[in-house]
Amino acid sequence: MNANSQPMLAPMDFAARSRAIRSRLESEDVDVLVVTHPPNVRWLTGFTGSNGQVLVSGQTLTVVTDPRYEVQVAQELAAAGVAATVEIVRPTDDRKLAQIVAGHGQGGARIGLESDSITKAQWDEFTQVMEATAGDGGPSQLVPVSGWVQELRQIKDDGEIARLRYAAAIADQALASVAAGFGPGVTEIEIAAELAYAMRRAGAEDVAFPTIVAAGANAALPHAQPSHRPLADGELLLIDMGARYDGYHSDMTRTFAIGALHDEQANWVEAVLAAQRAGVEAVSAGVSARAIDRRCREVLADFGLADYFTHGTGHSIGLEIHEQPMLSTRSEDILAVGHVVTVEPGVYLPGFGGVRIEDSVLVTPSGREPLTLSPKIDLDGVNGRPFNQQ
Amino acid sequence: MNANSQPMLAPMDFAARSRAIRSRLESEDVDVLVVTHPPNVRWLTGFTGSNGQVLVSGQTLTVVTDPRYEVQVAQELAAAGVAATVEIVRPTDDRKLAQIVAGHGQGGARIGLESDSITKAQWDEFTQVMEATAGDGGPSQLVPVSGWVQELRQIKDDGEIARLRYAAAIADQALASVAAGFGPGVTEIEIAAELAYAMRRAGAEDVAFPTIVAAGANAALPHAQPSHRPLADGELLLIDMGARYDGYHSDMTRTFAIGALHDEQANWVEAVLAAQRAGVEAVSAGVSARAIDRRCREVLADFGLADYFTHGTGHSIGLEIHEQPMLSTRSEDILAVGHVVTVEPGVYLPGFGGVRIEDSVLVTPSGREPLTLSPKIDLDGVNGRPFNQQ
Repeated sequence: MNANSQPMLAPMDFAARSRAIRSRLESEDVDVLVVTHPPNVRWLTGFTGSNGQVLVSGQTLTVVTDPRYEVQVAQELAAAGVAATVEIVRPTDDRKLAQIVAGHGQGGARIGLESDSITKAQWDEFTQVMEATAGDGGPSQLVPVSGWVQELRQIKDDGEIARLRYAAAIADQALASVAAGFGPGVTEIEIAAELAYAMRRAGAEDVAFPTIVAAGANAALPHAQPSHRPLADGELLLIDMGARYDGYHSDMTRTFAIGALHDEQANWVEAVLAAQRAGVEAVSAGVSARAIDRRCREVLADFGLADYFTHGTGHSIGLEIHEQPMLSTRSEDILAVGHVVTVEPGVYLPGFGGVRIEDSVLVTPSGREPLTLSPKIDLDGVNGRPFNQQ
Repeated sequence: MNANSQPMLAPMDFAARSRAIRSRLESEDVDVLVVTHPPNVRWLTGFTGSNGQVLVSGQTLTVVTDPRYEVQVAQELAAAGVAATVEIVRPTDDRKLAQIVAGHGQGGARIGLESDSITKAQWDEFTQVMEATAGDGGPSQLVPVSGWVQELRQIKDDGEIARLRYAAAIADQALASVAAGFGPGVTEIEIAAELAYAMRRAGAEDVAFPTIVAAGANAALPHAQPSHRPLADGELLLIDMGARYDGYHSDMTRTFAIGALHDEQANWVEAVLAAQRAGVEAVSAGVSARAIDRRCREVLADFGLADYFTHGTGHSIGLEIHEQPMLSTRSEDILAVGHVVTVEPGVYLPGFGGVRIEDSVLVTPSGREPLTLSPKIDLDGVNGRPFNQQ
């Protein structure tokens, strides 16, 4: 794969998505849903512009965007096979958007707004417009709606799985091509730059999130930012990386040894490796997300390291890098076929270092399929020819 | 400059920022402002985590974030010289956030919430908590607040100007290093990958926005996405790019000729070049943003191309890539010393091609200082040794 390869991937079933959300509208007695969360807009219609809203009613689909995207929206709807009316309004003209919405509801209609996405200011604008445009049946009623599209997005279709798999493969290829250059003297920021470049050369649109490259004590911060500090012998190097392909995100963490490790570091590595393997093996349809999290913690406890695992075990990926269901001690979710979740236990020893290993895993009818395939760990003491000496 | 250089840039005056927002609180009779828009949080405190809120009262500054950022927030507040209390809550625990806010207001206090940032669901959560925690003076009153911090952010301080200038210089250096490889056969996506890599190698944290690389008919879409189509002789190549450095964004557009141009293309280029120069020369403190926009349109009209300039003339840059004031036909703003605005007229001939030239320009006491310094246009028929033949 490279920047110019255009793989033939399974198509995405946009028609099924509109059908599913319409079923929800019907069961909730909502006449029109106004979709404002950008990944939800993309998932329903294929439209990728930075400004877009979708109005879904029982019969109609309407995309609202601004003049910058007039050509693009037509192209993307056609590519997705989505039949929708397009309305072009000035950017951030919430009043006009509300008027278009009002035009879709009869007097007294129930209009759903995504309350985790729509701002307080937009809600107030909508409220005013509904009152100003009230017909014989009284003003349309605004209904706060939370997570309807997100719930449907949890189960990935074949087209989405193909894109998630491809995004994971891009990251695998990029890491393999760059890892030979890890060594003393190279900085975290240089590694991050090389990985981003390698992912784009392999076909990524962009990195899936700011790459974490953290060595030595910096690896003790779960969300460390790459620094200018050069790698040194005897350090653990933690890399949390992903590629975005056609909107879909991959997510993988690997830990490398720079030179020889001392026994304590080797123990951290062994513990996280065992915990992560146990967690992945526990992934299966019908298993609770909480059970995966518990399994990882049990293994770390066997190594006396449970207290150093300070975050949740994983999350789902898709059009966003963090989606539901989450794998955590508080999760109420049950895994199902088509979920794609990360399993990423770690241990973090403040001031000393950290280890994390993470795979993205598809839940399949027969169990699970890891999408990230790079070797889980490299303990051979990476010591190639660093970038800065090539 | 390179990925490992750490320039000494002017410090940013965080104390002045808190003072300024407190003056606004006092004049608006608001007791506590809850800042939720992430760039506003960063501007007030230096904290860069993906989850953070700031509570500003007349005397206190409180940052609320989650356990992932416990170490980072302390480091960043110290680096910024900001004295603030830190409260750690679980991610997305809006109820707990609201309770902390309630603890900062006495009975009947007026509490400002950023209504363009806070969601409807968060507003409702806050409303419930205020009622549940009402004291003798009745529940605290929630006040929707719009744009208070953004207005202050319009005028950049010396530290911000230094960062914007550095981000612009990174993009200049990257473009110069990559432009020699433009030529027939190279794809838009390859150029975007090379530019992103060159910007990171030059010290960028990331691209400032998805780079636009658009040749031939693709350049007729103002927000084109890079494609797999190879460049061909006789095409115009439009590149809209920027780097992010320490949170600050640069923004520059250049147009290149691949091989020789026909007369009509040359006319588009001449028109846009003249319009852009006139627009930049009109930038000065006290001038209306609308006048800059009008000036560009007048020059394009002289060339008979006014109808093909289909977007606004510019916007401001800073911690966000699109900030107020905007330069457009509807703008009500007056330019002031410390504004940093883009001037980016273009012409777009659907099906044929497009030209845009854009600089980022600082408004100074004596006039203006362009921050983007790459040659405005390259008409020599770029024809170096393309990447794919190196």
